[in-house]
Amino acid sequence: MAWVAVLMGSESDWPVMRGCTDVLGDLEVGFEVRVTSAHRTPEATAEYVHSAEERGCRVFVCGAGLAAHLAGAVAAQTTHPVIGVPIDGGPFTGQDSLLSTVMMPGGVPVATVAVGKAGAKNAGYLAAQILGVADSALAERVAAERKAGAERVATQNASVQASLEA
Amino acid sequence: MAWVAVLMGSESDWPVMRGCTDVLGDLEVGFEVRVTSAHRTPEATAEYVHSAEERGCRVFVCGAGLAAHLAGAVAAQTTHPVIGVPIDGGPFTGQDSLLSTVMMPGGVPVATVAVGKAGAKNAGYLAAQILGVADSALAERVAAERKAGAERVATQNASVQASLEA
Amino acid sequence: MAWVAVLMGSESDWPVMRGCTDVLGDLEVGFEVRVTSAHRTPEATAEYVHSAEERGCRVFVCGAGLAAHLAGAVAAQTTHPVIGVPIDGGPFTGQDSLLSTVMMPGGVPVATVAVGKAGAKNAGYLAAQILGVADSALAERVAAERKAGAERVATQNASVQASLEA
Amino acid sequence: MAWVAVLMGSESDWPVMRGCTDVLGDLEVGFEVRVTSAHRTPEATAEYVHSAEERGCRVFVCGAGLAAHLAGAVAAQTTHPVIGVPIDGGPFTGQDSLLSTVMMPGGVPVATVAVGKAGAKNAGYLAAQILGVADSALAERVAAERKAGAERVATQNASVQASLEA
Amino acid sequence: MAWVAVLMGSESDWPVMRGCTDVLGDLEVGFEVRVTSAHRTPEATAEYVHSAEERGCRVFVCGAGLAAHLAGAVAAQTTHPVIGVPIDGGPFTGQDSLLSTVMMPGGVPVATVAVGKAGAKNAGYLAAQILGVADSALAERVAAERKAGAERVATQNASVQASLEA
Amino acid sequence: MAWVAVLMGSESDWPVMRGCTDVLGDLEVGFEVRVTSAHRTPEATAEYVHSAEERGCRVFVCGAGLAAHLAGAVAAQTTHPVIGVPIDGGPFTGQDSLLSTVMMPGGVPVATVAVGKAGAKNAGYLAAQILGVADSALAERVAAERKAGAERVATQNASVQASLEA
Amino acid sequence: MAWVAVLMGSESDWPVMRGCTDVLGDLEVGFEVRVTSAHRTPEATAEYVHSAEERGCRVFVCGAGLAAHLAGAVAAQTTHPVIGVPIDGGPFTGQDSLLSTVMMPGGVPVATVAVGKAGAKNAGYLAAQILGVADSALAERVAAERKAGAERVATQNASVQASLEA
Amino acid sequence: MAWVAVLMGSESDWPVMRGCTDVLGDLEVGFEVRVTSAHRTPEATAEYVHSAEERGCRVFVCGAGLAAHLAGAVAAQTTHPVIGVPIDGGPFTGQDSLLSTVMMPGGVPVATVAVGKAGAKNAGYLAAQILGVADSALAERVAAERKAGAERVATQNASVQASLEA
Repeated sequence: MAWVAVLMGSESDWPVMRGCTDVLGDLEVGFEVRVTSAHRTPEATAEYVHSAEERGCRVFVCGAGLAAHLAGAVAAQTTHPVIGVPIDGGPFTGQDSLLSTVMMPGGVPVATVAVGKAGAKNAGYLAAQILGVADSALAERVAAERKAGAERVATQNASVQASLEA
Repeated sequence: MAWVAVLMGSESDWPVMRGCTDVLGDLEVGFEVRVTSAHRTPEATAEYVHSAEERGCRVFVCGAGLAAHLAGAVAAQTTHPVIGVPIDGGPFTGQDSLLSTVMMPGGVPVATVAVGKAGAKNAGYLAAQILGVADSALAERVAAERKAGAERVATQNASVQASLEA
Repeated sequence: MAWVAVLMGSESDWPVMRGCTDVLGDLEVGFEVRVTSAHRTPEATAEYVHSAEERGCRVFVCGAGLAAHLAGAVAAQTTHPVIGVPIDGGPFTGQDSLLSTVMMPGGVPVATVAVGKAGAKNAGYLAAQILGVADSALAERVAAERKAGAERVATQNASVQASLEA
Repeated sequence: MAWVAVLMGSESDWPVMRGCTDVLGDLEVGFEVRVTSAHRTPEATAEYVHSAEERGCRVFVCGAGLAAHLAGAVAAQTTHPVIGVPIDGGPFTGQDSLLSTVMMPGGVPVATVAVGKAGAKNAGYLAAQILGVADSALAERVAAERKAGAERVATQNASVQASLEA
Repeated sequence: MAWVAVLMGSESDWPVMRGCTDVLGDLEVGFEVRVTSAHRTPEATAEYVHSAEERGCRVFVCGAGLAAHLAGAVAAQTTHPVIGVPIDGGPFTGQDSLLSTVMMPGGVPVATVAVGKAGAKNAGYLAAQILGVADSALAERVAAERKAGAERVATQNASVQASLEA
Repeated sequence: MAWVAVLMGSESDWPVMRGCTDVLGDLEVGFEVRVTSAHRTPEATAEYVHSAEERGCRVFVCGAGLAAHLAGAVAAQTTHPVIGVPIDGGPFTGQDSLLSTVMMPGGVPVATVAVGKAGAKNAGYLAAQILGVADSALAERVAAERKAGAERVATQNASVQASLEA
Repeated sequence: MAWVAVLMGSESDWPVMRGCTDVLGDLEVGFEVRVTSAHRTPEATAEYVHSAEERGCRVFVCGAGLAAHLAGAVAAQTTHPVIGVPIDGGPFTGQDSLLSTVMMPGGVPVATVAVGKAGAKNAGYLAAQILGVADSALAERVAAERKAGAERVATQNASVQASLEA
Repeated sequence: MAWVAVLMGSESDWPVMRGCTDVLGDLEVGFEVRVTSAHRTPEATAEYVHSAEERGCRVFVCGAGLAAHLAGAVAAQTTHPVIGVPIDGGPFTGQDSLLSTVMMPGGVPVATVAVGKAGAKNAGYLAAQILGVADSALAERVAAERKAGAERVATQNASVQASLEA
């Protein structure tokens, strides 16, 4: 089965990136997690990408903050889809990591999602959507989760109505 | 065969989005192009998405400028991967379309690429990478294109060396 | 009597949007509140807009954060005035929701107010001003509230003078 | 009949603001145009607002660039709806005029539309939508124009299809 | 003796603006403080400016947040120097109030200082420098305060050296 | 008679700064112009400031682009008022020079005006307003110029009316 | 032995700049620390630079916030390398200090590092790298520290794996 | 003799980066130029860095635009000083390349200079300053160039004086 590699540049990104692995787990998508750095461990990062591809990884999710190069560095090593999650830990609250991740030059795309927690979750959904192109059972689980999301909106609405009547 | 729908909010986006269809054509990926608006033709947009899915579309690419809602509106209608290309035509040169496209809330991801021409090209590469997860021949064409890109760097280097010696 | 629909994309917007309904209540303007999402429940959103119009709603107020598409999605379904309140909950403190709300393309306007609490209040005043065009008693209540606002400035001034003398 | 006052801080704003009066003319909404400055002619601005109200003006549209105070200065003189159009003439391409127009404090709203030409057009549509609350014939003309906008999208789509086949 | 009017749009600006009056007090410059609003009390603001001028006020200091129009509104009523202090209370931490204050059109200048507390202090120093052009005793007090500021740097340096040795 | 020193960091700033000297000339305020650099000629800059003060200069106007330090460097050498004009020549169109000029720490103010041509003109008006505190004839010329500015608005209005009737 | 001068504009910068001296200490690079201000003590700053150069200082590190001129002011006094650390203490979280530090005009470079704590550490590493060009023992200590950094990534990875298994 | 490697991600960066090699040539510093990409040719980039180090390169200058990763990718391969030049070719005029270059995490510094042409020149001066720490003859050439820069300011001043008298 195809699976997803979830990489991050620092252990401090883990509380945010856990939002991604939680979604992957809920959708029954296999994944591995690695702390690996584009700048401190460039060779180890490249080696991991090649090893993961050989072992069936088909989507890479990369979370990084500041001058976030990890997604681009991974994209330079693979032509499988790479998803970038800009982390908002620094003084510019992710403006730097967003631009460093999304503004990739022609030929080496990074599929960028929102900055921070919403983006980490969406990286999980997007990875599942991508693998779902070749896995109709997974695609159905993603569609079912979307319906559950719609129902959560109805629940929230009921809660607001209750607060109005209170 | 799975194919790609390339949507844009206005005909004025077409010169930029042509960068996407050129890449798809080079990589022998099937595609359709539609001008359709999240705001002016919301029902037609939704109907097109459902029709395209039924006819085998598996990736949607959406280009839009200003308060760019098209990618999000398409993502609201499908759980297949949606790629957003922020167009840079307005006074804020794409800062507005980037944020309107990438900052999607949890549960409805848009895979966002760079603003403008580089992004339109990368939307084509990314769509091919995604379809390549289920199509190894396509995956090989993408990998071959990456090698060609590396060779173009060498050509550029030779050109610069020549200018130095001149 | 014409009334105002106050919509928001998530229950988490409610503490801010309550500033809008408080103003509407003080000005004796009728309103309904709904949590409805441009991305998770697009059909329900469109249906609500049409239902509300039939039941006499003449102004829609939409609060949303991040890539805030709700006001635009509602404006795509109606030609009655739509007011957008950018919510500032994410890492960019509303810069994203402001641009996603205000930069609408020609033909589909959203009347945008300030980001956050000041904007939510002003959405209430603006909705009342709009309905007041056809309702002179309401217009007078709005004008009276403006005078009360001027008097609150005088009260604040007295408080500052007192602190100077202390 | 209720009409619209279209104000601007400088003659240099007129080429942009003409987009507003063109829309008003097409929708058969009456209007007056004035160059008047919040800073150079504050008393004349205030007097014009009061005179216009007495003569039946029910919506004010204000276009201004840089530290754009005109809409706020007009809003301080009336409790009828005020629409602000940020003009993008200066070095910051309207970032300054957008923030100066939209971030109004609680109690004195300005209904802000997009920066520049798209915004000027939308100010015309929004003014017509507001007057349409009390004028059903006008409301129908606005709805008809929305349908025409949808048809223009179809025309644009046909043009793009033709270019693809060429 | 010429004196300084210290105006602010809301009592909530007072904790910041107190930094201005503290400096004026230390430099023995006379001042008055008023809460007055460009939007809620425009006539009262204009009247105060004229009254203050007649009573010898020669510099106006205006603090305001969000779409900060107070300094511009005061500058529209006087040709004496007006100093603007952008307040950083809202979601954009003063980016809006800075641009609304500093980007004044040609002919109506506002002397803008830093956002927030540093700016409020500097408004006091700048007002004293301006009055010092016509008051050599005051100019000497300003120069003496500058020397004291230099000495405070030496004290800070000693404190850092001590922490190094600890 | 007190006069104004108009300094700039580079000859390339002169076309913008000429807007300042034109205003000073029209208002019959004496001035000197110097190209002097905070970074390339720091000692010459400091010497000029001291020399100018001894010869009666009472206001310094400093125009600079990019990391615009000239106004701050001059303010470090004098306790007379220093006006900063951010020049918009670089890739960030003056965002850098605005922040480098206005965000001065407490104790060393720079009176900052708008970026670019509007700011250069306003630096001339502001310098005249400051010297007018001690020179009532100059203050009257400034007030007369303000009235002329108001009349220019009326002329612009007439021009727009004529274009409407055409 | 060549050494490094670590300067800062205010004692409040010291907690951040300590990150620089900690790195220098770990790498056995000699340093001095001074609080000195470009604006409050310009002559003392210039004198210190010349004195330090004579005593063997070969790299200057300058930390400052807001309109951060210290690095530029030091660079104006020396042609030895100057490293600028933008401090993020003010309302713009270092956007102002970054632009004020990095956008130096041609001829007077400042080697700018990241805003805040990461930048202060990197200023220490960069200073050591520069001195290492002439000091191979120091260059080896820098290379060894880089290897240690790579090992810390492995430790962080192990910690994340442990949390996954928990 | 130690020399400088001048790298760029694309031939389109060469017109800007030529400003760097012109300065190095004038200061008689040896250099090599290479077009090499962090994303398209990551292995070739790494190999070049190691080869250059072995052949005596002691400073790397890297110019790149958009999500500019080249300087960081080079810094990941060497502990010699790396200078980053953000190029301003894209829709965000270098805001993206500046943040992608300067906001490096702790341990892997990039010495960042100004965006665009001024930065490319300063990268040349900074590289010469760094090599000058170990090469006193070069240090003297850099100091002489600084004096020549001061004289160019005097020439510019004379030109402005002449235009005033004209």
